[in-house]
Amino acid sequence: MEVFCSRFRVYYEDTDLGGVVYHANYLKFCERTRTDFTRLALDFSQKELLENKGQAFVVSRLNCLFRRPAHFEEELSVSCIPVHMSKAKCEMYQEIKNEAGEVLFALICSLSLIDVKSGRPVRLDPSFTEKVTPFIREDTEKLLSLQ
Amino acid sequence: MEVFCSRFRVYYEDTDLGGVVYHANYLKFCERTRTDFTRLALDFSQKELLENKGQAFVVSRLNCLFRRPAHFEEELSVSCIPVHMSKAKCEMYQEIKNEAGEVLFALICSLSLIDVKSGRPVRLDPSFTEKVTPFIREDTEKLLSLQ
Amino acid sequence: MEVFCSRFRVYYEDTDLGGVVYHANYLKFCERTRTDFTRLALDFSQKELLENKGQAFVVSRLNCLFRRPAHFEEELSVSCIPVHMSKAKCEMYQEIKNEAGEVLFALICSLSLIDVKSGRPVRLDPSFTEKVTPFIREDTEKLLSLQ
Amino acid sequence: MEVFCSRFRVYYEDTDLGGVVYHANYLKFCERTRTDFTRLALDFSQKELLENKGQAFVVSRLNCLFRRPAHFEEELSVSCIPVHMSKAKCEMYQEIKNEAGEVLFALICSLSLIDVKSGRPVRLDPSFTEKVTPFIREDTEKLLSLQ
Repeated sequence: MEVFCSRFRVYYEDTDLGGVVYHANYLKFCERTRTDFTRLALDFSQKELLENKGQAFVVSRLNCLFRRPAHFEEELSVSCIPVHMSKAKCEMYQEIKNEAGEVLFALICSLSLIDVKSGRPVRLDPSFTEKVTPFIREDTEKLLSLQ
Repeated sequence: MEVFCSRFRVYYEDTDLGGVVYHANYLKFCERTRTDFTRLALDFSQKELLENKGQAFVVSRLNCLFRRPAHFEEELSVSCIPVHMSKAKCEMYQEIKNEAGEVLFALICSLSLIDVKSGRPVRLDPSFTEKVTPFIREDTEKLLSLQ
Repeated sequence: MEVFCSRFRVYYEDTDLGGVVYHANYLKFCERTRTDFTRLALDFSQKELLENKGQAFVVSRLNCLFRRPAHFEEELSVSCIPVHMSKAKCEMYQEIKNEAGEVLFALICSLSLIDVKSGRPVRLDPSFTEKVTPFIREDTEKLLSLQ
Repeated sequence: MEVFCSRFRVYYEDTDLGGVVYHANYLKFCERTRTDFTRLALDFSQKELLENKGQAFVVSRLNCLFRRPAHFEEELSVSCIPVHMSKAKCEMYQEIKNEAGEVLFALICSLSLIDVKSGRPVRLDPSFTEKVTPFIREDTEKLLSLQ
């Protein structure tokens, strides 16, 4: 199965006075890609999950490696690979590459599901875990030195 | 009655590669100040309004004048003056000044209240209009050339 | 000549606790589209302008009308139409529409060019004005009630 | 020596439709605090470093733990503790607490210095390392489970 990727261009809003992308904005590109992955690859609606069950995914852990800066007007390619899943958590590995294919940024994040009203963690939706399972790749050589 | 002001420092996140504050971020400083004004000067809770009545303020119109850029680590002083109110709308005039007292940015915005679920406009809460009334200043010479 | 449009999806980062897009973020979608317009329709490089001449475009005035909120995961279509140009300024009209073609947001903004070091306004680059001219549309019925 | 802390309120811009602070925005609060720490505790100017030497700090690694969400209008207290330093890197530990003193978020980040033009890493400025040294605390029980 191919790796899921989204593409985003870097705009003024993403940069800071250092002339490159502001560090926290790499996380935004990754979150956009997880949302695209969930909607397009999994065909799972976060919107319905929120409206019907009052549940939302939250990030519980993040390990990030910043290797090279991204620049204004570059087109970035952002991957999303589930690498581990339990009843409570789903772990994703993501890389941001520039047009030359260089890895600029990589992260591993743990996602859990919460009940929005109470803020309490709940078990991952079985229809979600079922849809994620075929995408899981555990070949850890892909994970740079993030673990 | 004195003009209500909040103070905010400019951080990396506010700037872009042009070396100064990104244009849309001036609106964030103004919104923070409206929130402070509502909480501190009016003693009115937007949080309770949302939780108890499902209502929230939205911006319906904005006129903005950008006069001089704000720079990294400057401390900005942001004012909030109600200048007009009807049953449906409250109009605010706001200025952002630097430490030298120069006006960097000014705006007039119209706020209305909506029912969050339906997205429909509703009449301003009477307890809100009552609290705003003593703060209204209609001396329009203060409004730069925004009208 | 057709109207230039860019398309963007609404992600978590764009929304606030009111459940819809945060007001200042409509300006980001418009700025992204101006950048796309400049790069794609005009074939004019802001990057080279900054690197070679130390000049950058800044927003000097903004009039915005917020008509309907944009929601999570909606795809927005954002237009960019130059409506007026002088030696010092270029005025753009922009609309954000949802997938149903409803206008959610409209703005007119005045752009001027500055020398980044001094912060001083400079005349628009002749190669820029020449490239913009064929795109100017002055049919003001398009401008909603923004003027 | 006391732990350095900055205080920030949560505004609309920081939240997302989940009703709490958007995950990447915790990093902004931490970056603001590092900037305050550098300016106030160290009396070291990032602005002069950029203008005079063309150098800027960049984040090279981040480990983050999200424990509890932060809510609209809460006042957050954000700490900044240098925990390790070499010639090339400075490692900071930071916690975000709510008004009840609960730890909502914690991170360890590695900062390095780059030459902005080339993007190349350079040795930390000796005047910076000298100023940081007295603040270093290596009592790792403070680091939650981040290492």
